[in-house]
Amino acid sequence: MAKLQGFKMLTNVDEALKVWLNAWSVKQFDCVVLPLVDVCGRILAEDVVALVDLPCFARSAMDGYAVRYIDCLNASQLCPVRLEIISVGEVAVGQAKQIWTGNPLPDGADAVVMLEHTVCNGNILEISCPLVPNVNVIPCGDDVKKGQIVAKAGTRLNPYVIGLAAALGFSSLKVYRKPVVALLATGNEIVAVGTMAGAHQIFDSNKLMLSAMCNELGAETIDFGIVKDNVEEISEKIRQALMVSDALITTGGTSVGGLDLVPEAVNSVGKPGVIVHGLALRPAMPTGVAVLNDKPIMILSGNPVASIVGFEVLGRPAVCRLLGLSRVESRFVLSAVLSRKVSGFLGRRTYVRVLVKFSMGALIVEPVSAKGSSSISTMTKSNGYVIIPENREGLTEGETILVQMFGGIEIDV
Amino acid sequence: MAKLQGFKMLTNVDEALKVWLNAWSVKQFDCVVLPLVDVCGRILAEDVVALVDLPCFARSAMDGYAVRYIDCLNASQLCPVRLEIISVGEVAVGQAKQIWTGNPLPDGADAVVMLEHTVCNGNILEISCPLVPNVNVIPCGDDVKKGQIVAKAGTRLNPYVIGLAAALGFSSLKVYRKPVVALLATGNEIVAVGTMAGAHQIFDSNKLMLSAMCNELGAETIDFGIVKDNVEEISEKIRQALMVSDALITTGGTSVGGLDLVPEAVNSVGKPGVIVHGLALRPAMPTGVAVLNDKPIMILSGNPVASIVGFEVLGRPAVCRLLGLSRVESRFVLSAVLSRKVSGFLGRRTYVRVLVKFSMGALIVEPVSAKGSSSISTMTKSNGYVIIPENREGLTEGETILVQMFGGIEIDV
Repeated sequence: MAKLQGFKMLTNVDEALKVWLNAWSVKQFDCVVLPLVDVCGRILAEDVVALVDLPCFARSAMDGYAVRYIDCLNASQLCPVRLEIISVGEVAVGQAKQIWTGNPLPDGADAVVMLEHTVCNGNILEISCPLVPNVNVIPCGDDVKKGQIVAKAGTRLNPYVIGLAAALGFSSLKVYRKPVVALLATGNEIVAVGTMAGAHQIFDSNKLMLSAMCNELGAETIDFGIVKDNVEEISEKIRQALMVSDALITTGGTSVGGLDLVPEAVNSVGKPGVIVHGLALRPAMPTGVAVLNDKPIMILSGNPVASIVGFEVLGRPAVCRLLGLSRVESRFVLSAVLSRKVSGFLGRRTYVRVLVKFSMGALIVEPVSAKGSSSISTMTKSNGYVIIPENREGLTEGETILVQMFGGIEIDV
Repeated sequence: MAKLQGFKMLTNVDEALKVWLNAWSVKQFDCVVLPLVDVCGRILAEDVVALVDLPCFARSAMDGYAVRYIDCLNASQLCPVRLEIISVGEVAVGQAKQIWTGNPLPDGADAVVMLEHTVCNGNILEISCPLVPNVNVIPCGDDVKKGQIVAKAGTRLNPYVIGLAAALGFSSLKVYRKPVVALLATGNEIVAVGTMAGAHQIFDSNKLMLSAMCNELGAETIDFGIVKDNVEEISEKIRQALMVSDALITTGGTSVGGLDLVPEAVNSVGKPGVIVHGLALRPAMPTGVAVLNDKPIMILSGNPVASIVGFEVLGRPAVCRLLGLSRVESRFVLSAVLSRKVSGFLGRRTYVRVLVKFSMGALIVEPVSAKGSSSISTMTKSNGYVIIPENREGLTEGETILVQMFGGIEIDV
C-alpha cells in the first residue's frame, strides 16, 4: 500500500476507460458542408457514394492507335496488318485513329495498339502484333462503379479520398463540426506564460501542450486560464467551461495531497461527478475521469509528462469519439528491438519514453533516461512510447517490442 | 527502348533530385513571431535557449516531509528518529516540515522523507528510515540547465517542445513563414469540380490532392486553375504563378504525346527551364523538374497516382527545404512481412501501394491491386508504399520489407 501514495485503490486503465466512455453519450454533432479544399483531416459525416462510373468513359491506357481488335487478330512481325489512319469520326473496319494515354476511346474502336508495335507510312499503319478485345483500354467504371461507397462516415479525410471525391464530381463534403475542449489549469504556484514568475512559481506548460495535442487530433480548444487551489473557484470555472464546451480537461490538484481539490470541486458541481480517481498507470497515477452534464471530464496531473500520458490514455479515445470517428485512431506502431532492459511495475501499465533510431540497417529502441514525470525535456528527446503491460515487471534487452510513435525517425529512406 | 514511351532517356530519381535541388537556392525566408498556442507544426527559425534552470528551484519529488538529512542518518524501524513538525519558516536542526510533490524545498532542508516512512504524533514526526543528501529532491536545473539549447532552428515544433518552451518562460517563438506553392492543372479535357462535366471531360482531382499534401507538410497553396493545352496560355499562367509563389506544381501535359506542352511552355518562360524530364520511376515516369526565377517547378503527370508519387519523390524534399526544415522529413517507416510477391522493373524505382494490416499478432503487408496510375481508388485502399529499388526485378513473398506509411493501421493497441 505504501506505493499507492494515498490512493485507497487504483483502477485498471482499460476498466476505467470503459466505465467512463459508457458514462457519457455520443452526441450527434452538427455537420458542416465544406469545399474539398478545406476538408483534409476532417471527419466525414456521411458515406461518399459514387454517383457515376469512374472513369465515366472507356479510355486508352497507352499512347498508340485505337482500332477494332478483329482487324488485328492475325497480325505478326512476318505478316503485319495494314490499316488506314483516320483523324476524325468513328473507327470503321480497316481503320485506326491515333490516341494518347487517357484519351476517350473513339466510337467503333475496341482496342488500342501501342505506338511501339506500329509503323506509320503516310496514312497507312502497320501493326505487327495480334490484339485481343479491350487490350490497353481502361473500361468505364474500372476504378469505381456507380453506386459504390468510396468512403464511409466516421473516417478521417486524407488527400487521396479528397482526390477520389473530386474525380467523382463532388465539390464539397459533409463533415462534423470540430468538438471543443475546454482547458483549465489549477494551482497556487502556476502562472501564465508571458507574465513574470515570482520565486517558487512555475509557468503553465500543460495547457499549451494539451491544446496542441487536441488540435493535432482535430479538436478546438478554449483556454479557461489558471485557477487557485480553492474548491469554490475551481467549481465555478468548471461550470463556466461546461457551458461552452464538449469536454473539459483540468490539470493539477488531483493527487491526494493537501491542496488536491479538483475531484472535490468536480463533485460539488453535480452528478455523477468523479467516476474513477487513481489509475494503475505510470506515470499519471493521480488521474481521474468524471462526467458532468453528460460531458466527459479528464482530471489530469500537473506534472507535464503525467498530463501527456493521461491525455494519451484517456484524451485520445475521448476526443476521437467526440470527433465522430468510428474507431479510435492509434499512433503509428512499429516493432523493433529494445537496446536495454527497462523496468515496469507489476500491476500498473507503464509508459516508457523511447527514442527509435535507425542503426546499422535496423530499427532499435532506446529508452530515454527515465527521470520523473516532471521532466518535459525527456519528451522532446523521445519519438515514441513503449507500453509495459500490467502483468510484466519489465522488458528485457534484445526483446522485439511494439512502439507507439509520436515523432519522426531520423533516417534517410 | 520500347518501354520508354517516347522518352529518349530516363534519369535516375536520386540523380534528378540532386541536380534539381542544387539548381535553386535556399532562401532565408521571413520569420514571424507567434504565440505558443499557434506554433504547433511550424518550423523553428532560431534555436530555443534556456534562459533559466528548469526547475528553477529545488523541489520535492514526493509527498512527505522536508528535513535535514543529517538528522536522519541513523533512523531505523527499531530506532526511529523524532523531529519537531513546523509549519512556517526555515527547517532548522531537529525539525521537519510537510511538503507535497512539486513543492519548493524549504530553506534549511536538504532531503525529503516519504509520507509512508513516517508516523505523525501531534507535532512530533517519527522517521523510520535513514536518509541521504538530496533524496526525493529534484535539484534546480535537473530537467534543463540554463544556457542549454532545447530545440534547434530548422526543426518542426511538436506539443512537447512547446511545453518545454512554456516551462522555460517563453510565451512566443520565432518560426518561418509558410512557403507558398502555386498549383496549375493543364489539359483540354479537365474541368473544375463544381462545374458540369461534358462527355469525355474529367474533373480536376490532382490539384486538390496536391494542395492537401502541401498543407499537411505545412505549406500554403494558391490555385491557379486549369489551362488548356496551349503553350502561350500555359507560359502566361506560369509567369503569373511565379510572381506570387515560392514554387510551382503543374499537372498534366508532361508525357511526350501530341499535347504534352508543359515542358515547352516552361522553357519558353526563361532559363534554365526544364532540368530533367523523364524519371526512372514507376508510376510517374513522365515527370519533370525545372527552375525559373530561382524557384523550383515540379512538372507532374496528369494521372492521379503518378502525380501523387511524383510529389512524394520530388515535392516532399522540395517543400521540406522551402519550409526551412534542416532535413527532409520522411514518412513513418515500419518493417513487416510481404504477403505475396510484387513485380518491379529493372532500372526503375517502383512505388507499390500496399495495405499494412495487423494479423495474428504480426504486421503484414498486402500489395493493393496494381491497376494503372489512373486509379485513385487504390490510394484510398492503401496505407503505405513499398519501394522496389532500381536493381531489383521485384520482391518475394515472405520477404521482410520497409514500408513508408501514409495512413493508419487498423489495430487496437
